[in-house]
Amino acid sequence: MANPTITVGNGNATEVIQTSGDKADANVTPRRHLLDLDDLSTKEITDLLDSAAGMLEITNRDVRKTPALRGKTIITMFFENSTRTRVSFEQAGKILGADVINVTASASSVSKGESLLNTVKTLQAMQIDALVVRHPHSGAPYFISNHTDASVVNAGDGTHAHPTQSLLDLFTVRTHVGDIAGKKIAIVGDVLYSRVARSDILAFQKMGAEVTVSCPNTLLPDEWQLGTTLDASTGFGGLKLARNVDDAVEGADVVMALRIQQERQDAGHLPSLREYSDRWGINAKRMALANDGALLMHPGPMNEGVEISSDVAHGAQSVVEEQVRNGVAVRMAVLYTLCAPGKSSRLSGGDEA
Amino acid sequence: MANPTITVGNGNATEVIQTSGDKADANVTPRRHLLDLDDLSTKEITDLLDSAAGMLEITNRDVRKTPALRGKTIITMFFENSTRTRVSFEQAGKILGADVINVTASASSVSKGESLLNTVKTLQAMQIDALVVRHPHSGAPYFISNHTDASVVNAGDGTHAHPTQSLLDLFTVRTHVGDIAGKKIAIVGDVLYSRVARSDILAFQKMGAEVTVSCPNTLLPDEWQLGTTLDASTGFGGLKLARNVDDAVEGADVVMALRIQQERQDAGHLPSLREYSDRWGINAKRMALANDGALLMHPGPMNEGVEISSDVAHGAQSVVEEQVRNGVAVRMAVLYTLCAPGKSSRLSGGDEA
Amino acid sequence: MANPTITVGNGNATEVIQTSGDKADANVTPRRHLLDLDDLSTKEITDLLDSAAGMLEITNRDVRKTPALRGKTIITMFFENSTRTRVSFEQAGKILGADVINVTASASSVSKGESLLNTVKTLQAMQIDALVVRHPHSGAPYFISNHTDASVVNAGDGTHAHPTQSLLDLFTVRTHVGDIAGKKIAIVGDVLYSRVARSDILAFQKMGAEVTVSCPNTLLPDEWQLGTTLDASTGFGGLKLARNVDDAVEGADVVMALRIQQERQDAGHLPSLREYSDRWGINAKRMALANDGALLMHPGPMNEGVEISSDVAHGAQSVVEEQVRNGVAVRMAVLYTLCAPGKSSRLSGGDEA
Repeated sequence: MANPTITVGNGNATEVIQTSGDKADANVTPRRHLLDLDDLSTKEITDLLDSAAGMLEITNRDVRKTPALRGKTIITMFFENSTRTRVSFEQAGKILGADVINVTASASSVSKGESLLNTVKTLQAMQIDALVVRHPHSGAPYFISNHTDASVVNAGDGTHAHPTQSLLDLFTVRTHVGDIAGKKIAIVGDVLYSRVARSDILAFQKMGAEVTVSCPNTLLPDEWQLGTTLDASTGFGGLKLARNVDDAVEGADVVMALRIQQERQDAGHLPSLREYSDRWGINAKRMALANDGALLMHPGPMNEGVEISSDVAHGAQSVVEEQVRNGVAVRMAVLYTLCAPGKSSRLSGGDEA
Repeated sequence: MANPTITVGNGNATEVIQTSGDKADANVTPRRHLLDLDDLSTKEITDLLDSAAGMLEITNRDVRKTPALRGKTIITMFFENSTRTRVSFEQAGKILGADVINVTASASSVSKGESLLNTVKTLQAMQIDALVVRHPHSGAPYFISNHTDASVVNAGDGTHAHPTQSLLDLFTVRTHVGDIAGKKIAIVGDVLYSRVARSDILAFQKMGAEVTVSCPNTLLPDEWQLGTTLDASTGFGGLKLARNVDDAVEGADVVMALRIQQERQDAGHLPSLREYSDRWGINAKRMALANDGALLMHPGPMNEGVEISSDVAHGAQSVVEEQVRNGVAVRMAVLYTLCAPGKSSRLSGGDEA
Repeated sequence: MANPTITVGNGNATEVIQTSGDKADANVTPRRHLLDLDDLSTKEITDLLDSAAGMLEITNRDVRKTPALRGKTIITMFFENSTRTRVSFEQAGKILGADVINVTASASSVSKGESLLNTVKTLQAMQIDALVVRHPHSGAPYFISNHTDASVVNAGDGTHAHPTQSLLDLFTVRTHVGDIAGKKIAIVGDVLYSRVARSDILAFQKMGAEVTVSCPNTLLPDEWQLGTTLDASTGFGGLKLARNVDDAVEGADVVMALRIQQERQDAGHLPSLREYSDRWGINAKRMALANDGALLMHPGPMNEGVEISSDVAHGAQSVVEEQVRNGVAVRMAVLYTLCAPGKSSRLSGGDEA
């Protein structure tokens, strides 16, 4: 799943995009982009989570506003719809006092055949400070980051990564359990195609958690096998692949249900939704197998009655709304870390190939 | 027309929505939502109009800006297009110093099958202060208000209500005639389906005006009959149903023409547009039947040549543009009243069932 | 090409629009609108360019923000997609501290059959300060300017004008060559249909430059002939029509390649793209014919490999990204000049017919 090389076509031009893969060198500071958590050291992740804690406090004030990024311009460029993620970034930028400008794919000049490269070069020429990108093609934010002086934040790229989602998941878990190291995390669902799954597995493993996944065989990469533990060559060393969901959930400190995409079912990767719900859905009975006080998480939007039952989705163990709330604070921390004034050296940084 | 129970389907989930109906108890303060004017006492309405007068003064300044709602986040969530209403709310929020974030139905996650409930819970988790909602289904804002701590402002729901339109209509009339009590208001047009008609009839009656409506028989509820005056059991006690438009307009202090929706004609509820214009259109000859200096109003957008002739639409008695201008001030008053700092008790308010 | 009379239909209403044509009277100040550069005197243009130089300095600051237009409302109303132009205006307005509200055609009430006139009257009633309009029909911004007290900025109308593009082109050339008078400008491409071509020819001629165009015969107005120089009766007196592109480029100080619109080719106005590229495309060999250090310009978005080769598009002589950067500064200068506080007399100005 790492190092995808994919092809992005926008209008006339076709661009070959390479993702950076696993670059864990944390010595290069200050960081210019947030593309994937596998780029970050545990210290950098911890610093971001600490910063998010301060930001969360700001979001709880009666007057939610700081001038920290006053005079900075943040552009959200979404080639896929996502109200929740776009609004979260927009609010984060505005609370920090930045100007936020929204660009959507349908409104963008890509409809005039302008290539992604030229769109980026145009926005870059406007001297923007950050470009928050969601794109259906894995690797697109990496490609963009190689062609702009602005800070690029990956807001979800294809099946590859969604680093701010993982940061907010880490933050939410840390708030409840303290140190993440040694905790047991069960992730249930669309592992093959979910950027949340990929990002979260890497993030929780990096912070020392023990991660187990459970899903239908058809949603695993071909070379993986249920009932085994992956070795380091896969990039996910130590990841356990549970034969059934009860094995994964038993004794877990965190249970995360992933959204089932209708597209997977259409492609024949899934049994009926009813059967999926029976065999992999998270409900009260399954949650009872987890540790006392285990957290129930979901990246949203939820298909209640499919991968998660309504009672647990809105029950006492659910931290789903807390995840959303923390998302604003985490994105404030990311935008501030990348764009804050005084970070003038960021333009001369060379942390990207 | 009161207490509609309707069904809203967004993606997988289907939600049953109940509107609050006539709840005229004004003892509960501070108010958290603005869903319908029938929720408000005459004192609350008068207070809002007084506040709007102050806001209008601000909009007339060379620098139209106050920090009254600095650090507050207002989301406009429009499931139907309406540039005029959305821009009016957006400008109102920005003049007050709030951050305004726009969400449209097509851009929202409802296209991913997320239910209205989960969309609202997600936005609510972001700790927004106000949610301005336009929705094609009557009652949707009531449903939303039951699931969020944010202040919900109904910006038009189906055929049910459009309270800020009615407030700006009251404000416009009050500016010209002073006390509304005892004044004669003629409303001509699509009474059955128009949320403006329903809201305005209730609002003007509540303020003591004498309201007469005129429309084709096919645009009246089945149980109503032209030539009668409604009794209290209908919820519109005292409303006169004129046999013809001249009877309604004669002696009126205010003549309000309503927009004819193309959809009504398509459904066979209307004669030809030419016949409609002849029999119910407001023109100079009809305006001459009204009192000297009577006001001509229209909620816009106007079909000139159909429900209103161009000469009177842009003539001396027309206050159509003034209605739009007052709309910004009225929405400032509503947003300020619901969201102003120091209103911390609003979160513990229990004014909704 | 001057004085087009065209017809704009939005929904029910059909409006006849007349453009103002050549009105070069510069005595009337302060100016209320920016509709076309042929309205402006050379002094007014020079003043705007001088103002843009100051604005460019602001955009280079670490904190890009001034309160110059605080409390002003700017609406961008785009009836055609153009991310680059809309974002440029939005950023310009926000850096100046104004509130910017975006309206797009698809989201606007024109889908309800509201006429352009009523849309404008509605926005005008909201007491907005500037209306930035892009419209597919030539003359639409003129029509709008006759019905609003707001300052109207033409952001591109049909095949007619794109004055801020021309101002940024002038600004970019002036930055590099100093005085524009006497300089040789070669414009290559879609002269008949390009508003950029029309605006730029007039602008550079007005500032004293010698302009030569080159394009396929099919993209010239019928009454023009390759190999001739136009006389004053055409409105473009002194414009040279080169028989081939090498004649136009030879000895030029500036070479501007225009975007080839796919629509032109579909209409049979063009040979194949390969033949167009061979005969009119700007590449390294052709640039070698120009003066040493000649500038290569393109209004974007570029079709690389068609009207411009990739090596020169991103080469040392290219100022394409600089054009985009300067665009923000030029639009700041325009918005500030039209809307700045203290310009209260602008509401009583009578500079438009």
